Amino acid sequence: MIGEIIAIGDELTSGRILNSTSYFAASHLFAAGHEIAAMSTIGDTQEMIGTAIKRAIARADFVVVTGGLGPTSDDMTTEAVADALNRPTTFYPEIFERVRNSSAFASMPSLEKLAWLPSGAEVLKPGEKMAGYLLIDQEKPIFFLPGIPHQMRELMLDRVIPRLEAWSGDHEVLVRQKVYKVLGLEESHIHERLAELEKQGEFLRIGYYPMAAEVHVSLTLRGDSPADVERAFAEYEAEIRRALGSYIYDEAGDSMEEIVGSLLAGKKLTLGLAESCTGGLIAHRLTSVPGSSDYFRGGLVAYANEVKGRMLGVRDETLLSQGAVSRQTALEMARGARQALGVDLALAVTGIAGPGGGTADKPVGTVWFALAGPDSGQAFLCRFRGRRQMVQTVAAMRGLDIIRRYLLDLPLPAGEPL
Amino acid sequence: MIGEIIAIGDELTSGRILNSTSYFAASHLFAAGHEIAAMSTIGDTQEMIGTAIKRAIARADFVVVTGGLGPTSDDMTTEAVADALNRPTTFYPEIFERVRNSSAFASMPSLEKLAWLPSGAEVLKPGEKMAGYLLIDQEKPIFFLPGIPHQMRELMLDRVIPRLEAWSGDHEVLVRQKVYKVLGLEESHIHERLAELEKQGEFLRIGYYPMAAEVHVSLTLRGDSPADVERAFAEYEAEIRRALGSYIYDEAGDSMEEIVGSLLAGKKLTLGLAESCTGGLIAHRLTSVPGSSDYFRGGLVAYANEVKGRMLGVRDETLLSQGAVSRQTALEMARGARQALGVDLALAVTGIAGPGGGTADKPVGTVWFALAGPDSGQAFLCRFRGRRQMVQTVAAMRGLDIIRRYLLDLPLPAGEPL
Repeated sequence: MIGEIIAIGDELTSGRILNSTSYFAASHLFAAGHEIAAMSTIGDTQEMIGTAIKRAIARADFVVVTGGLGPTSDDMTTEAVADALNRPTTFYPEIFERVRNSSAFASMPSLEKLAWLPSGAEVLKPGEKMAGYLLIDQEKPIFFLPGIPHQMRELMLDRVIPRLEAWSGDHEVLVRQKVYKVLGLEESHIHERLAELEKQGEFLRIGYYPMAAEVHVSLTLRGDSPADVERAFAEYEAEIRRALGSYIYDEAGDSMEEIVGSLLAGKKLTLGLAESCTGGLIAHRLTSVPGSSDYFRGGLVAYANEVKGRMLGVRDETLLSQGAVSRQTALEMARGARQALGVDLALAVTGIAGPGGGTADKPVGTVWFALAGPDSGQAFLCRFRGRRQMVQTVAAMRGLDIIRRYLLDLPLPAGEPL
Repeated sequence: MIGEIIAIGDELTSGRILNSTSYFAASHLFAAGHEIAAMSTIGDTQEMIGTAIKRAIARADFVVVTGGLGPTSDDMTTEAVADALNRPTTFYPEIFERVRNSSAFASMPSLEKLAWLPSGAEVLKPGEKMAGYLLIDQEKPIFFLPGIPHQMRELMLDRVIPRLEAWSGDHEVLVRQKVYKVLGLEESHIHERLAELEKQGEFLRIGYYPMAAEVHVSLTLRGDSPADVERAFAEYEAEIRRALGSYIYDEAGDSMEEIVGSLLAGKKLTLGLAESCTGGLIAHRLTSVPGSSDYFRGGLVAYANEVKGRMLGVRDETLLSQGAVSRQTALEMARGARQALGVDLALAVTGIAGPGGGTADKPVGTVWFALAGPDSGQAFLCRFRGRRQMVQTVAAMRGLDIIRRYLLDLPLPAGEPL
């Protein structure tokens, strides 16, 4: 089915808040086989909300509207839709009861407002303390979800996706898509490697999406018969894998930290870190994965030189003669972390994230990595472009990729001197 | 001026990528005094791109379009706009020269495409390797910017905002707005405290924006005369400050880590960390600030119990009798980190981020903080709601807030037993 997403709120149109709810909705609707024709964001203005909803209903098979369902005076989605779709609001006594018994709202004079919904509205989670309802208009489902991200996400997964699946029932979607996450190759080089493939077939589409540290390559195929689509897809996929090889780190929707974590868990190895320029970002990414305590033991954010010496045993001599950003310092950090943390494998990162600290020899973006394992250690030099946060983000991804490649016995990316 | 923002790309409508460029644009346009009536996101479909641009031009005073300017086959903004606005594309030899000399594109057959722009287009940064141009249509400026975030941001700040300022010239904007970032109070309690204020004046508007760990409260005032607006704004602002007190941690657009960093730098104090459940997130946030090496010396991510003992000196006895998530462990972690890292002040965090590890006594979300300074240490208990990443995010913010409150001699938030 073809859908539209409308997000409502002055906080979005004034750029105070990043609209992550529309992103979440689009991502999950797409994965469920729907196509999103357009996403709009509009401010808290009753007339514009009504116009946007009416326009979306006219064009799409379904509409998801988020935001503006709360109790405060700037929440006006329900009034707007009641007006625009000619569905006068009705009092829902069961909502009123539930709201009144909720401590969070108990003392708010405006709580009654939450109990008035457009006539015909079906509350999505009647038993729970969250807004959200479904209206059917012109035989199309219109979902109204709260703008509070975690409530919106819950309703999206528990209600919207299943309801749409039931709704679309017998429509068959003949589109296959997969996304390949590529690290260590620039977009233009990926494009070169896939140039031949791009020429094959009008139903094939390859998309290139450069991210902070990586490029996502999507392969989309449409077709008439399921068998044909599957066969052609397998062929094109083989070609992509041949062209991009181990630069593809994921095809299954997993993050780099999840992949590294699974590899470590599978091999029953423990990991430790010694981070300087990435300042804890690698540790943060690894520990964002549930269960990471099984393989991640800890890390040292060795920001000051004294800390590198004191806690990791980096020698003063090394720091004085080679500098904090050097092959030898990286190696001593990794070996020191391995010993101090008592782990099988330790990664060290030391570099110049900027904006200050760069020199002609070692400009901003110069980063040394070292990996220490039972087989002594290796060090790698990278030079990244961009500002501080970009350098930190890219360095964290590359550091994780070095662990991935080590655990998979893959070669290190070309162009990085050992 | 009233503007619209249009973001183009299948990667956005399919939810593969979060649309942070529209957010950035809205935020800076709003800060410059403009109002964004609507933001749209549409896929790589030539016809829809054309329709969206025409509709926006009809409604708004200016339009910002991002994405679809690259060399690959899914980049079709220029063709769409040439078609929709009847501006046939013209060859720009100087762009062709620049592109051809750029190594990144040298070998791409499609590079010539970048040198064809709609007739009348003014290249925004002619000397640099980035797409982006301005078209004037129906006497309205339409900016076309690349979707690559850092290029888009650069053009937004260096070209779009200044050009619009010159354009709007004599229109006076009589709106004052400020955002107060509030940590440690729930939305409903903030609403209660501001209930009286909400009733004052029809030109006053208060917005509530719950974020992961905090609530942003906006105060917006419109008026006829600058003097009246200023006077009323000062009055309302005083009322907000009185009602929310030290729960407001920022009014100037600074992040918590910037505020903590400035306080530490101002007092010439050094900081160290011992993180367990936050897994490096606090270190990461602190080190994302340029110049943080002046006050942040380092941190230990002590994920495993052995690491807490080995590197921070937490006693086995404490871990055995009290557990890793306890007042005593937090205190020993903080004191150990202060000593091991050689810093003035050390913050420790130990808790249960989930999804596993919770007990009846210590459910998921239980987090102990401790702060060790020259005056021995203090410990604080919090219980946070939500999933793993939410607990980590909220705990990191609260940890930073504990440092802020300590440095400002503010009381700790009520309800948290010492």
